[in-house]
Amino acid sequence: MAVATQSLETLCINSIRFLAIDAVNTAQSGHPGLPMGAAPMSFVLWDKFIRHNPKNPKWFNRDRFVLSAGHGCMLQYAMLYLTGYDSVSIDDIKQFRQWGSTTPGHPENFETAGIEVTTGPLGQGVCNAVGLAMAEAHLAAKFNKPDCTVVDHYTYTIMGDGCNMEGISSEACSLAGHLGLGKLIALYDDNHISIDGSTDIAFTEDVSKRFEAYGWHVLHVEDGNSDLAGIEKAIAEAKKVTDKPSMIKITTTIGYGSPNRAGTGGIHGAMLGDDETIATRENLDWKYDFFEIPEDALSRYRQAIDQGAEAEADWEKTLSTYRSKYAEEAAEFERMISGKLPDGWEDALPTYTPEDKALATRKNSEATLNALAPALPELIGGSADLTHSNLTELKISGDYQKGAYENRNIHFGVREHGMGAICNGIALHGGGLIPYCATFLVFTDYMRGAIRLSALSEAGVVYVMTHDSIGLGEDGPTHQPVETVASLRAIPNLYVIRPADGNETSGAYKIAIQKRNAPTLMCFSRQGLRNLPGSSIDAVAKGAYIMSDSDGTPDLIMIATGSEVQLCEDAAEKLRGDGKKVRVVSMPCWKLYEEQDAAYKESVLPKAVKKRLVVEAMSSFGWAKYYGDEGDMISVDTFGASAPGGVVMEKFGYTIDNVVSRANALLS
Amino acid sequence: MAVATQSLETLCINSIRFLAIDAVNTAQSGHPGLPMGAAPMSFVLWDKFIRHNPKNPKWFNRDRFVLSAGHGCMLQYAMLYLTGYDSVSIDDIKQFRQWGSTTPGHPENFETAGIEVTTGPLGQGVCNAVGLAMAEAHLAAKFNKPDCTVVDHYTYTIMGDGCNMEGISSEACSLAGHLGLGKLIALYDDNHISIDGSTDIAFTEDVSKRFEAYGWHVLHVEDGNSDLAGIEKAIAEAKKVTDKPSMIKITTTIGYGSPNRAGTGGIHGAMLGDDETIATRENLDWKYDFFEIPEDALSRYRQAIDQGAEAEADWEKTLSTYRSKYAEEAAEFERMISGKLPDGWEDALPTYTPEDKALATRKNSEATLNALAPALPELIGGSADLTHSNLTELKISGDYQKGAYENRNIHFGVREHGMGAICNGIALHGGGLIPYCATFLVFTDYMRGAIRLSALSEAGVVYVMTHDSIGLGEDGPTHQPVETVASLRAIPNLYVIRPADGNETSGAYKIAIQKRNAPTLMCFSRQGLRNLPGSSIDAVAKGAYIMSDSDGTPDLIMIATGSEVQLCEDAAEKLRGDGKKVRVVSMPCWKLYEEQDAAYKESVLPKAVKKRLVVEAMSSFGWAKYYGDEGDMISVDTFGASAPGGVVMEKFGYTIDNVVSRANALLS
Repeated sequence: MAVATQSLETLCINSIRFLAIDAVNTAQSGHPGLPMGAAPMSFVLWDKFIRHNPKNPKWFNRDRFVLSAGHGCMLQYAMLYLTGYDSVSIDDIKQFRQWGSTTPGHPENFETAGIEVTTGPLGQGVCNAVGLAMAEAHLAAKFNKPDCTVVDHYTYTIMGDGCNMEGISSEACSLAGHLGLGKLIALYDDNHISIDGSTDIAFTEDVSKRFEAYGWHVLHVEDGNSDLAGIEKAIAEAKKVTDKPSMIKITTTIGYGSPNRAGTGGIHGAMLGDDETIATRENLDWKYDFFEIPEDALSRYRQAIDQGAEAEADWEKTLSTYRSKYAEEAAEFERMISGKLPDGWEDALPTYTPEDKALATRKNSEATLNALAPALPELIGGSADLTHSNLTELKISGDYQKGAYENRNIHFGVREHGMGAICNGIALHGGGLIPYCATFLVFTDYMRGAIRLSALSEAGVVYVMTHDSIGLGEDGPTHQPVETVASLRAIPNLYVIRPADGNETSGAYKIAIQKRNAPTLMCFSRQGLRNLPGSSIDAVAKGAYIMSDSDGTPDLIMIATGSEVQLCEDAAEKLRGDGKKVRVVSMPCWKLYEEQDAAYKESVLPKAVKKRLVVEAMSSFGWAKYYGDEGDMISVDTFGASAPGGVVMEKFGYTIDNVVSRANALLS
Repeated sequence: MAVATQSLETLCINSIRFLAIDAVNTAQSGHPGLPMGAAPMSFVLWDKFIRHNPKNPKWFNRDRFVLSAGHGCMLQYAMLYLTGYDSVSIDDIKQFRQWGSTTPGHPENFETAGIEVTTGPLGQGVCNAVGLAMAEAHLAAKFNKPDCTVVDHYTYTIMGDGCNMEGISSEACSLAGHLGLGKLIALYDDNHISIDGSTDIAFTEDVSKRFEAYGWHVLHVEDGNSDLAGIEKAIAEAKKVTDKPSMIKITTTIGYGSPNRAGTGGIHGAMLGDDETIATRENLDWKYDFFEIPEDALSRYRQAIDQGAEAEADWEKTLSTYRSKYAEEAAEFERMISGKLPDGWEDALPTYTPEDKALATRKNSEATLNALAPALPELIGGSADLTHSNLTELKISGDYQKGAYENRNIHFGVREHGMGAICNGIALHGGGLIPYCATFLVFTDYMRGAIRLSALSEAGVVYVMTHDSIGLGEDGPTHQPVETVASLRAIPNLYVIRPADGNETSGAYKIAIQKRNAPTLMCFSRQGLRNLPGSSIDAVAKGAYIMSDSDGTPDLIMIATGSEVQLCEDAAEKLRGDGKKVRVVSMPCWKLYEEQDAAYKESVLPKAVKKRLVVEAMSSFGWAKYYGDEGDMISVDTFGASAPGGVVMEKFGYTIDNVVSRANALLS
């Protein structure tokens, strides 16, 4: 592997490689293989194509880049440092993977300016990229005018073999093909190596043909190690195809330059170490110090600073024209990209009285979504093929489709995991969009990888989950969430809300819309629930509150959520008739309750009242925290069963008589 | 849609349709569309191809059938009833979707003899089918002799558009193509309708081309409504191709026969009701009573009883020959298919003393797997591309590959969800195989849909999950399980075990292997853990036990799992030095502990001892049940962070000093 005279291009490319090698060696952990192999495509992409402003990483009209193969993050940190981002200095790179650094082990948008989304769990990034491209297409269709283009950027992603093996990427890429997202360009780092070794052992499908089957424009650069012109030509061609997303397979050698470990699994995720680093430096004729970048190379990269400032200034001019010609649209556009919600949007939330008809909370959710739709033009989303069960259609809009990107009803298909990751992309795009997505609550299991990343990456996705308990009935245990809500409540930074009626549903949406840096997951019933006299929109924000009470210190507190609150109200009435002092607490959201001060918590659940009965038609897992050492719970700690919903509820003990009897047992 | 004279074939096909119509009407819920559209392919498949014995649904050498589109389960119940299974009578069909019936809303292997696996959550079934075919290929390669074939069956599945949209099916089908599973035949019910309406709104990819890209043999029957000869020819061709799995796209009309709703989303999941049922009966010239099957049709179907008895008898003859020629192999084969474990297999479990070297429990796991491999020939499995991180290779075996199915190391690729569902298929195959599979613990999120189905469908899959806490270090929060274990402990019928050292690792495997009707999920550390004097293999079966103690009633009980047990031991020593009476309880498995009697539980965690400190390097979610009203916990209730493992542990408070200090705070 002899190396010719070092051209400036080669110096630039090797700069990426040695930053990765040195950083991983210093950290004694990390993944040098991908940055070394993908350095040429990255150089070409940033040098020739990516439009960004290093000194304003949040410039709205920047091209978005996602490193889907997030373990190769030293590639991305190298690009940020080389092109002049303040967030990643050479000292930060020396702190790769250390406590408190801006260069953690996988790219995290909330740690490092210039990182768009959080990747690492494989396959997520390319789906985020689909979401970013969908957001761009929507905003472009909504705001651009024939004589004035204020939204116009590409979304690029580098994905690896691992991303392509994950089913989540199949889901989102199939949808991207269906939608014809012409400004999405994926570079597939085809290096034939995954952690276990050659992809020959498990992954011999024809990836290009698969993407063609999805309706993508597919290209191949056979020598991704040295054919820079070929890479440039391919990306340029990809940009020309405007009605299909493009996938460019770029065949590379993982760990290129390492004489003994290039092209092997041994360089994927292990440092080179002293000997192999010396050998690689010799092989690539690299004469610079550790962490040193040749001045010429740095100057070339740092051209991005002036170019970026210029690009942003040009765009500002366009925006200024847009402002003068289309004042109203401009105001709306600038409001949205600033992340500010429209004044008074909360006024659109429906309110209910006990006289209003009992509805399933999924129907209350439908009413709320449709009430919010005109007030919140940034609300966009849909269901994973359960639109008429989840009731998530915005009736004022058509379907988001190829050529109709201005619409707000997205049909995700039966692709829950891809849906969640796409919504993360939409939420983190920076265009102010508020994505919502829906399926049956139990199928959050299919999309948990993406939900966790919503929470971790502070993406304000709104999850609309219906059919929220064994009360869904006939579909049976495969469809009945039992442990699902517990498993979701356990996720940090995720607001899980299970409303009891119409007002609580509006209250749940109020939180979901307000929380732009955290996801909210709402659980709605299939079956009808009456509107309770004590419920209120604002009380939901407290997480738990007194729904009804007896005078004086209660003998017993019943705590319930969702459909079980009305059951507790009925049981409490009976118990009060028997002279018992009973408080009913509705607890739609644990996390919001935990965020209240001690005085409020004591006012709702006084420590001294030890007789507590929790009633929730699902697993008791986690509830001991609230029912305590002397309390009890009516729960479902097995899987459910197939039968009409009312029958299932009865068989599992969700009847007034049983609640009264369990309450009396506690009191006796 | 005029209907010609009713041939016997047509009567047979319409029998399926009207059983579905009548059952769904009676239940007032269910999915008639798929059974009506897929009735012709089902008739042909059962009439001409499927080899089974209705009077012995567990006959080992039967063909396996999986209805991947599980919502269409009336199709499967109809076939079981029509071909003479005792598990589904006409009365059972009348009880469709009712409490306690054998005909629940989705097919459940644990409720209904003749159902192989539990389907309903889309995409799972076709992956189970891949697992069934992999099991068959392994057992065939292992046991068959040139002159004696004791393992020889096909695996058939019917999948719908929904199955094909789900990423999980992409994962398993890509692997099936790689493995060249020639005896796997998938019928794709291409009816262009999913719940939201035409597949045109979200799913326009070329499915056939995608399967070709995976390396499948692909066929198309254009008129799946009436071209019975075409269906028969295609299946026959599929059987002839022995080195590739076959996918037969069969274009049908959903709800065929319903004059007003065939071919629409309206018939997917809603009953026909009186008027449309009458219209459909007229349209299909159906003159029989509700739930009545014409005698000729029933007779034709019931030929399966004699044919099945004969097929089993023939196979018994072969087995008898096998016994006489290959006595040793026959004994092993019969032991395995009986589900009996070999005598004395537990003796292979490694044991440790405190003098043995401190190892990461993932290394103990590796030693255990390799110690068990010779003792348990039924153990087969692998990792989702993390073999050398999970340490799951069986060193006595080669890789399970096309042409080398006798081997036991499966490379699943980066396909966690597909891996879990494949293992469910292997576990439920009936060949006695014990599948294990592995990834990083945090990525159980990707495969949770399959893990839940292991638990629900009583599949004894062994989940080997490594890198089990923030202690994994540099990879950071995307890779650090924090809430993961809580979310898994919440799943009914799943044994989650987090061993503290070598003996507990052996104890965890002992449970995992013994539990053939429940999955076990083990959580292993990345970092080294010393062997504790109080640990034991058998104590793990109790779920929690006293690891070390002071004399008399303890002042304080510390409860820990996994890597935090040694930390508590160190802290306890300090506290005891200060005259405190401290008990340390290791609690590797909540579920096993809950299964103990009250006396045992009281002996480990006496109710009267209220000062309790839980130490686990993850979320506190759920632990209040054990630390109680007056206890405390050192937990991680945010996401983790990227830094060396020891640093992360220290920053989050997992130090001897902090444990001592928190213990003293409780005691003061």
